[in-house]
Amino acid sequence: MYMKPLADKEALALVGPNVYTLVTSMDKSGKPNALAVGWVTRTSIKPFLMLISIDRRRYSHEGISHHKEFVVNYPTFEQAKGAEVCGSRSGRDCDKLKEAGLEVVASQKVKVPTIKGCTVAFECKVVSFFETGDHTVFVGEVVACSGNPEKTKHLYYQSDHSMLGLAGK
Amino acid sequence: MYMKPLADKEALALVGPNVYTLVTSMDKSGKPNALAVGWVTRTSIKPFLMLISIDRRRYSHEGISHHKEFVVNYPTFEQAKGAEVCGSRSGRDCDKLKEAGLEVVASQKVKVPTIKGCTVAFECKVVSFFETGDHTVFVGEVVACSGNPEKTKHLYYQSDHSMLGLAGK
Repeated sequence: MYMKPLADKEALALVGPNVYTLVTSMDKSGKPNALAVGWVTRTSIKPFLMLISIDRRRYSHEGISHHKEFVVNYPTFEQAKGAEVCGSRSGRDCDKLKEAGLEVVASQKVKVPTIKGCTVAFECKVVSFFETGDHTVFVGEVVACSGNPEKTKHLYYQSDHSMLGLAGK
Repeated sequence: MYMKPLADKEALALVGPNVYTLVTSMDKSGKPNALAVGWVTRTSIKPFLMLISIDRRRYSHEGISHHKEFVVNYPTFEQAKGAEVCGSRSGRDCDKLKEAGLEVVASQKVKVPTIKGCTVAFECKVVSFFETGDHTVFVGEVVACSGNPEKTKHLYYQSDHSMLGLAGK
Protein backbone atom coordinates (compact mmCIF):
# COMPACT_ATOMS: atom_id res chain seq x y z
CA MET A 1 0.00 0.00 0.00
CA TYR A 2 1.40 3.37 -1.00
CA MET A 3 0.75 6.76 0.51
CA LYS A 4 -1.40 8.92 -1.77
CA PRO A 5 0.68 9.83 -4.85
CA LEU A 6 1.02 13.58 -5.29
CA ALA A 7 2.12 15.79 -8.18
CA ASP A 8 5.33 17.76 -7.49
CA LYS A 9 3.35 20.97 -6.99
CA GLU A 10 0.92 19.41 -4.54
CA ALA A 11 3.81 17.93 -2.58
CA LEU A 12 5.75 21.19 -2.44
CA ALA A 13 2.68 23.04 -1.18
CA LEU A 14 2.80 20.86 1.93
CA VAL A 15 6.44 21.60 2.76
CA GLY A 16 6.09 25.14 4.15
CA PRO A 17 6.41 27.35 5.99
CA ASN A 18 9.87 27.84 4.49
CA VAL A 19 12.51 30.14 5.91
CA TYR A 20 13.04 33.33 3.90
CA THR A 21 16.54 34.78 3.98
CA LEU A 22 18.22 37.62 2.14
CA VAL A 23 21.68 36.80 0.85
CA THR A 24 23.78 39.91 0.48
CA SER A 25 26.64 40.04 -2.00
CA MET A 26 28.51 42.63 -4.08
CA ASP A 27 28.62 42.89 -7.85
CA LYS A 28 31.95 43.16 -9.66
CA SER A 29 31.94 46.95 -9.23
CA GLY A 30 31.40 46.61 -5.46
CA LYS A 31 27.70 47.57 -5.41
CA PRO A 32 25.83 45.65 -2.66
CA ASN A 33 22.88 43.48 -3.66
CA ALA A 34 20.39 41.28 -1.80
CA LEU A 35 18.66 38.17 -3.11
CA ALA A 36 15.74 36.35 -1.48
CA VAL A 37 16.93 32.81 -0.80
CA GLY A 38 14.88 30.03 0.76
CA TRP A 39 17.23 27.24 -0.25
CA VAL A 40 19.73 27.53 2.56
CA THR A 41 20.95 25.15 5.25
CA ARG A 42 23.83 24.40 7.57
CA THR A 43 26.08 21.66 6.23
CA SER A 44 28.92 21.09 8.72
CA ILE A 45 29.41 21.59 12.45
CA LYS A 46 33.22 21.79 12.49
CA PRO A 47 34.13 23.79 10.47
CA PHE A 48 30.88 25.78 10.71
CA LEU A 49 29.61 25.72 7.12
CA MET A 50 26.37 26.89 5.51
CA LEU A 51 25.26 26.39 1.93
CA ILE A 52 23.00 28.37 -0.35
CA SER A 53 21.52 27.29 -3.64
CA ILE A 54 21.49 30.05 -6.27
CA ASP A 55 19.87 30.07 -9.71
CA ARG A 56 22.68 30.53 -12.22
CA ARG A 57 20.80 33.32 -14.00
CA ARG A 58 20.66 35.56 -10.92
CA TYR A 59 22.78 38.69 -10.80
CA SER A 60 23.97 37.67 -7.32
CA HIS A 61 25.43 34.46 -8.79
CA GLU A 62 27.99 36.54 -10.68
CA GLY A 63 28.91 38.61 -7.63
CA ILE A 64 29.30 35.66 -5.27
CA SER A 65 31.40 33.81 -7.86
CA HIS A 66 33.62 36.86 -8.23
CA HIS A 67 34.15 37.98 -4.61
CA LYS A 68 33.73 34.55 -2.98
CA GLU A 69 31.83 36.08 -0.07
CA PHE A 70 28.19 36.35 0.98
CA VAL A 71 26.12 37.06 4.08
CA VAL A 72 22.97 35.10 4.99
CA ASN A 73 20.60 37.57 6.67
CA TYR A 74 17.35 36.52 8.38
CA PRO A 75 15.06 39.56 7.97
CA THR A 76 12.61 40.37 10.76
CA PHE A 77 8.86 40.19 10.27
CA GLU A 78 8.85 44.02 10.21
CA GLN A 79 11.16 43.90 7.17
CA ALA A 80 8.72 41.74 5.18
CA LYS A 81 7.86 44.40 2.63
CA GLY A 82 11.46 45.17 1.78
CA ALA A 83 12.34 41.49 1.80
CA GLU A 84 9.61 40.83 -0.78
CA VAL A 85 11.04 43.52 -3.06
CA CYS A 86 14.38 41.67 -2.93
CA GLY A 87 12.56 38.58 -4.16
CA SER A 88 10.91 40.28 -7.13
CA ARG A 89 13.48 42.65 -8.68
CA SER A 90 16.97 42.18 -10.14
CA GLY A 91 20.02 44.04 -8.89
CA ARG A 92 21.14 44.08 -12.53
CA ASP A 93 18.56 46.80 -13.28
CA CYS A 94 18.29 48.80 -10.07
CA ASP A 95 19.70 49.50 -6.63
CA LYS A 96 17.59 46.79 -5.07
CA LEU A 97 18.39 47.56 -1.44
CA LYS A 98 17.37 51.19 -1.96
CA GLU A 99 14.12 50.16 -3.66
CA ALA A 100 13.48 47.79 -0.80
CA GLY A 101 14.05 50.47 1.82
CA LEU A 102 16.65 48.28 3.53
CA GLU A 103 19.84 49.71 4.96
CA VAL A 104 23.13 47.88 5.24
CA VAL A 105 25.93 48.12 7.77
CA ALA A 106 29.54 46.95 7.58
CA SER A 107 30.15 43.29 8.32
CA GLN A 108 32.84 42.21 10.78
CA LYS A 109 35.01 39.93 8.63
CA VAL A 110 33.81 40.16 5.02
CA LYS A 111 33.55 43.10 2.63
CA VAL A 112 29.94 42.22 1.74
CA PRO A 113 27.62 44.22 4.04
CA THR A 114 24.98 42.97 6.50
CA ILE A 115 21.33 44.07 6.49
CA LYS A 116 20.73 46.46 9.35
CA GLY A 117 18.24 45.32 11.96
CA CYS A 118 17.82 41.74 10.74
CA THR A 119 17.31 39.02 13.35
CA VAL A 120 20.61 37.29 12.66
CA ALA A 121 23.29 37.33 9.96
CA PHE A 122 26.02 34.84 9.06
CA GLU A 123 29.11 36.18 7.29
CA CYS A 124 30.48 33.55 4.91
CA LYS A 125 33.59 32.97 2.82
CA VAL A 126 33.09 30.55 -0.06
CA VAL A 127 35.12 27.38 0.44
CA SER A 128 33.62 25.37 -2.44
CA PHE A 129 30.80 25.33 -4.95
CA PHE A 130 29.17 22.80 -7.24
CA GLU A 131 26.48 22.66 -9.89
CA THR A 132 23.12 21.07 -9.07
CA GLY A 133 20.75 21.13 -12.04
CA ASP A 134 19.85 24.76 -12.79
CA HIS A 135 21.44 26.07 -9.58
CA THR A 136 24.87 26.42 -8.02
CA VAL A 137 25.44 25.46 -4.42
CA PHE A 138 27.90 27.81 -2.71
CA VAL A 139 29.36 26.40 0.51
CA GLY A 140 30.46 29.13 2.89
CA GLU A 141 32.50 29.00 6.06
CA VAL A 142 30.84 31.18 8.69
CA VAL A 143 33.55 33.58 9.84
CA ALA A 144 31.37 35.90 12.00
CA CYS A 145 27.78 36.28 13.21
CA SER A 146 25.77 39.28 14.29
CA GLY A 147 22.17 39.95 15.14
CA ASN A 148 19.40 41.69 16.91
CA PRO A 149 18.29 39.36 19.73
CA GLU A 150 15.39 41.70 20.60
CA LYS A 151 13.80 40.93 17.24
CA THR A 152 13.53 37.17 17.16
CA LYS A 153 10.47 36.95 14.90
CA HIS A 154 11.85 36.40 11.43
CA LEU A 155 10.35 35.63 8.04
CA TYR A 156 8.94 32.45 6.54
CA TYR A 157 7.05 32.14 3.25
CA GLN A 158 4.01 30.03 2.70
CA SER A 159 3.11 28.10 -0.41
CA ASP A 160 0.51 30.81 -1.22
CA HIS A 161 3.42 33.34 -1.14
CA SER A 162 2.17 35.04 2.02
CA MET A 163 4.70 35.90 4.72
CA LEU A 164 4.73 34.63 8.27
CA GLY A 165 6.81 35.74 11.26
CA LEU A 166 8.11 33.03 13.58
CA ALA A 167 10.55 33.07 16.46
CA GLY A 168 12.78 30.31 17.77
CA LYS A 169 12.86 30.04 21.53
CA MET B 1 28.60 50.57 12.73
CA TYR B 2 28.15 46.83 13.03
CA MET B 3 25.16 44.84 14.15
CA LYS B 4 25.72 43.29 17.57
CA PRO B 5 28.38 40.55 17.26
CA LEU B 6 27.10 37.15 18.38
CA ALA B 7 28.80 33.87 19.23
CA ASP B 8 27.93 30.99 16.85
CA LYS B 9 25.64 29.43 19.44
CA GLU B 10 23.74 32.64 20.10
CA ALA B 11 23.31 33.18 16.37
CA LEU B 12 22.07 29.65 15.73
CA ALA B 13 19.51 29.96 18.53
CA LEU B 14 17.85 32.74 16.51
CA VAL B 15 17.52 30.74 13.29
CA GLY B 16 14.63 28.44 14.24
CA PRO B 17 12.09 27.08 14.02
CA ASN B 18 13.85 24.59 11.74
CA VAL B 19 12.10 21.95 9.69
CA TYR B 20 12.48 18.42 11.04
CA THR B 21 12.45 15.63 8.46
CA LEU B 22 13.07 11.91 8.64
CA VAL B 23 15.25 10.57 5.88
CA THR B 24 14.57 6.92 5.22
CA SER B 25 17.22 4.67 3.71
CA MET B 26 18.22 1.00 3.74
CA ASP B 27 21.37 -0.50 5.15
CA LYS B 28 23.51 -2.86 3.03
CA SER B 29 21.38 -5.83 4.13
CA GLY B 30 18.18 -4.06 3.08
CA LYS B 31 16.94 -3.13 6.58
CA PRO B 32 15.07 0.21 6.53
CA ASN B 33 16.33 3.02 8.73
CA ALA B 34 15.25 6.59 9.46
CA LEU B 35 17.45 9.52 10.42
CA ALA B 36 16.29 12.90 11.73
CA VAL B 37 17.57 15.51 9.26
CA GLY B 38 17.08 19.25 9.53
CA TRP B 39 19.71 20.12 6.96
CA VAL B 40 17.64 19.68 3.83
CA THR B 41 16.65 21.97 0.98
CA ARG B 42 15.57 22.03 -2.64
CA THR B 43 18.43 22.81 -4.98
CA SER B 44 17.10 22.80 -8.56
CA ILE B 45 13.75 23.39 -10.23
CA LYS B 46 14.37 21.50 -13.47
CA PRO B 47 15.40 18.77 -12.83
CA PHE B 48 13.64 18.68 -9.46
CA LEU B 49 16.50 18.14 -7.02
CA MET B 50 16.70 18.15 -3.23
CA LEU B 51 19.80 17.88 -1.09
CA ILE B 52 20.42 16.52 2.39
CA SER B 53 23.47 17.00 4.54
CA ILE B 54 24.48 13.87 6.46
CA ASP B 55 27.12 13.46 9.16
CA ARG B 56 29.67 10.97 7.82
CA ARG B 57 29.55 8.94 11.06
CA ARG B 58 25.82 8.17 10.75
CA TYR B 59 24.71 4.66 9.91
CA SER B 60 22.40 6.10 7.24
CA HIS B 61 25.43 7.58 5.47
CA GLU B 62 26.63 4.09 4.64
CA GLY B 63 23.21 2.96 3.38
CA ILE B 64 22.60 5.99 1.19
CA SER B 65 26.11 5.72 -0.27
CA HIS B 66 25.48 2.05 -1.04
CA HIS B 67 21.93 2.05 -2.49
CA LYS B 68 22.00 5.63 -3.87
CA GLU B 69 18.41 6.21 -2.82
CA PHE B 70 16.65 7.99 0.03
CA VAL B 71 13.23 9.39 0.90
CA VAL B 72 12.71 12.74 2.63
CA ASN B 73 9.64 12.34 4.87
CA TYR B 74 8.00 15.27 6.69
CA PRO B 75 6.50 13.70 9.84
CA THR B 76 3.23 15.08 11.16
CA PHE B 77 2.97 16.78 14.52
CA GLU B 78 1.26 13.62 15.83
CA GLN B 79 4.42 11.65 14.94
CA ALA B 80 6.64 13.89 17.09
CA LYS B 81 7.45 11.27 19.70
CA GLY B 82 8.56 8.69 17.12
CA ALA B 83 10.42 11.33 15.16
CA GLU B 84 12.40 12.27 18.25
CA VAL B 85 13.43 8.64 18.77
CA CYS B 86 14.85 8.67 15.22
CA GLY B 87 16.94 11.66 16.24
CA SER B 88 18.41 10.04 19.33
CA ARG B 89 19.19 6.39 18.46
CA SER B 90 21.37 4.70 15.84
CA GLY B 91 20.03 2.15 13.36
CA ARG B 92 23.38 0.42 13.75
CA ASP B 93 22.29 -0.89 17.17
CA CYS B 94 18.53 -1.37 16.86
CA ASP B 95 15.51 -1.45 14.58
CA LYS B 96 14.99 2.26 14.92
CA LEU B 97 11.65 2.45 13.13
CA LYS B 98 10.21 -0.21 15.40
CA GLU B 99 11.53 1.54 18.52
CA ALA B 100 10.00 4.75 17.22
CA GLY B 101 6.64 3.12 16.61
CA LEU B 102 6.66 4.31 13.02
CA GLU B 103 5.40 2.14 10.18
CA VAL B 104 6.66 2.22 6.64
CA VAL B 105 4.93 1.58 3.33
CA ALA B 106 6.35 0.82 -0.09
CA SER B 107 7.51 3.79 -2.12
CA GLN B 108 6.42 4.27 -5.72
CA LYS B 109 9.75 4.45 -7.55
CA VAL B 110 12.53 3.61 -5.10
CA LYS B 111 13.21 0.53 -3.00
CA VAL B 112 13.64 2.59 0.17
CA PRO B 113 10.28 2.78 1.99
CA THR B 114 8.20 5.82 2.94
CA ILE B 115 6.96 6.60 6.46
CA LYS B 116 3.26 5.85 6.67
CA GLY B 117 1.03 8.79 7.47
CA CYS B 118 3.65 11.53 7.13
CA THR B 119 2.54 14.88 5.68
CA VAL B 120 4.60 14.56 2.52
CA ALA B 121 7.45 12.40 1.22
CA PHE B 122 9.91 12.90 -1.63
CA GLU B 123 11.45 9.79 -3.19
CA CYS B 124 14.99 10.56 -4.37
CA LYS B 125 17.69 8.92 -6.45
CA VAL B 126 21.19 10.19 -5.73
CA VAL B 127 22.63 12.04 -8.73
CA SER B 128 25.73 13.44 -7.03
CA PHE B 129 27.36 13.95 -3.66
CA PHE B 130 30.18 16.01 -2.23
CA GLU B 131 32.00 16.48 1.04
CA THR B 132 31.38 19.59 3.13
CA GLY B 133 33.41 19.66 6.33
CA ASP B 134 32.23 16.83 8.59
CA HIS B 135 29.16 16.09 6.43
CA THR B 136 28.35 14.73 3.00
CA VAL B 137 25.77 16.45 0.82
CA PHE B 138 23.71 13.96 -1.16
CA VAL B 139 21.86 15.50 -4.10
CA GLY B 140 18.76 13.54 -5.06
CA GLU B 141 16.48 13.75 -8.04
CA VAL B 142 12.88 13.59 -6.88
CA VAL B 143 11.32 10.75 -8.87
CA ALA B 144 7.96 10.55 -7.03
CA CYS B 145 6.02 12.27 -4.25
CA SER B 146 3.32 11.09 -1.90
CA GLY B 147 1.53 12.47 1.11
CA ASN B 148 -1.34 12.91 3.43
CA PRO B 149 -2.92 16.27 2.54
CA GLU B 150 -5.35 16.00 5.48
CA LYS B 151 -2.40 16.22 7.89
CA THR B 152 -0.65 19.41 6.89
CA LYS B 153 0.78 20.25 10.32
CA HIS B 154 4.31 18.92 10.26
CA LEU B 155 7.30 19.12 12.56
CA TYR B 156 9.79 21.88 13.31
CA TYR B 157 12.38 21.93 16.06
CA GLN B 158 13.21 24.89 18.21
CA SER B 159 16.61 25.88 19.53
CA ASP B 160 15.54 24.56 22.98
CA HIS B 161 14.90 21.18 21.26
CA SER B 162 11.14 21.37 21.73
CA MET B 163 8.92 20.43 18.79
CA LEU B 164 6.43 22.62 17.01
CA GLY B 165 3.76 21.71 14.45
CA LEU B 166 3.25 24.12 11.56
CA ALA B 167 1.22 23.92 8.37
CA GLY B 168 1.83 25.63 5.07
CA LYS B 169 -1.28 27.07 3.48
